[in-house]
Amino acid sequence: MSKLRCHISISLDGYVAGPDQSVEEPLGVGGESLHDWVVPLAAWRDLQGSEGGEVTASSPVFEESIENIGAAVMGRGMFGPIGGGPWAEDEQWNGWWGEEPPYHYPVFVVTHHPREPVEMAGGTTFHFVTDGIEAALTRAKEAAGGKDVMLYGGGRIAREYLAAGLLDVLELHVTPLLLGGGSRLLDDLGGTGVRLEQVRAVEGNGVTHLKYLVHHGR
Amino acid sequence: MSKLRCHISISLDGYVAGPDQSVEEPLGVGGESLHDWVVPLAAWRDLQGSEGGEVTASSPVFEESIENIGAAVMGRGMFGPIGGGPWAEDEQWNGWWGEEPPYHYPVFVVTHHPREPVEMAGGTTFHFVTDGIEAALTRAKEAAGGKDVMLYGGGRIAREYLAAGLLDVLELHVTPLLLGGGSRLLDDLGGTGVRLEQVRAVEGNGVTHLKYLVHHGR
Repeated sequence: MSKLRCHISISLDGYVAGPDQSVEEPLGVGGESLHDWVVPLAAWRDLQGSEGGEVTASSPVFEESIENIGAAVMGRGMFGPIGGGPWAEDEQWNGWWGEEPPYHYPVFVVTHHPREPVEMAGGTTFHFVTDGIEAALTRAKEAAGGKDVMLYGGGRIAREYLAAGLLDVLELHVTPLLLGGGSRLLDDLGGTGVRLEQVRAVEGNGVTHLKYLVHHGR
Repeated sequence: MSKLRCHISISLDGYVAGPDQSVEEPLGVGGESLHDWVVPLAAWRDLQGSEGGEVTASSPVFEESIENIGAAVMGRGMFGPIGGGPWAEDEQWNGWWGEEPPYHYPVFVVTHHPREPVEMAGGTTFHFVTDGIEAALTRAKEAAGGKDVMLYGGGRIAREYLAAGLLDVLELHVTPLLLGGGSRLLDDLGGTGVRLEQVRAVEGNGVTHLKYLVHHGR
C-alpha cells in the first residue's frame, strides 16, 4: 500500500526553518545551513543535474529517501513566499526551482487559492488543492501509481499530517544547529495519539539520520 | 582541565521532563519513560546496587557518561519537589535517593534557600549554593579533584549553563517519545553564541545517543 513518507532536515532545537522567513531567505535566518549535510553529496548533485560530489554514510540514506516516490504533497509556504510574495498577486509564480523542478512527479500543493495545474519540464506538474490535507493526500496516492507519496514541508503542514495520523514514515536529518526560533516540527503533539518507533539511526558527517515508523491510536 | 559534562535523556520533541511535574511524578506526565533505555542496563543496575541486566550498544555510552566524574551540580527542582513540597517546610528532605544516593561525590544544589551541607552514606554530600550557577560550578570544580563535573537537570538549570557558555560536553539520549509539553532543554538559545559540534552518534535499542562538544563566542 502506498505510504506517506517525510524526510526532513531539522536543527537540534527542533526547527525545520529558522526565524523570519522571507523571499530572500525562504528557510529563515540560518535555515539554509540545515542542508549543509546534503549539498556536497554526489547523489544530491546528480538530482540537480550536476556532476561530482561525495559519497558518505549519508549517501545511502539520501538515496533511499528519494526511492519509490510517485507523487508529493507540500504546503503553500514551500511552493512560494507567504504574504505579499509574488504568488499572491502573480499567477506566473511557478515555485523556487526554475523551469525543470527536481521532482519529476506530480506535486500537490495545499493552499486556499484555487489555480489550474502547472506542467513544468521534466515530468513535474503542480496541482493546487483547496480542500485540505486529506484530500491532497488522497489525490497524491491516486497519482503515485502504487508508489509512495513524499511529504515535503513547511513545518506547519508536516506537523498537521503527523498530528492527523496520516504519516507512515518520518526520517529526521538532525543537524547540530541551534536556530533559536522559526518553524518547529514536533510541537503540540501531546494528546494526538501519535507514537514513534525508532527503526534506525545512522551517524553522518555533522548530521545524524533518525528513522521512525509512525503509529497512531490512543 | 576539569570539564562540565551533561548527559541527559530527552524526548524527540525536546523535553527532558513531561508536563505537570509533581511529587508523585517528578519527571512529569510520561517523563519516567525517558529512562526506559537505561533501566535495563547491567551498568545502571550495578550503580543502584542491583545485579543482572543487559549489555547493549548503550552500555559503553552509559559507562563513559559516569566515568571520571568528581562532583556534580544540579538544580533545586531535581533535588526536591518545587512549590509546597517537603523541602520548602522541612529541612529533613534529603533528596529522592534514600540514605545512600547513587552519586558518591559532592553534589552542589543551586537554590535560593541557604542550608548546611548534608552528608549522606556512601560519599555523597549535598551542598547548597545560593550565589548562582557560576559559583556552584567553581565550587564543584574545586571539589572534583581534577576530575570532571557532571551537570544534572532539571531542564531549566541545564539550559542556563548551556546558554552561559559554561558547558563543555552535551550528550543527548534521544528517545522516540513525544511528551507534548514540559521542560524543554534547547529553548531560547538563539543569540547566545553557543555552537555545537557533533562528535558521535550511537544507535541503541529505542534510543539514539548524540554527543556534542559545546563551543561559544560569536
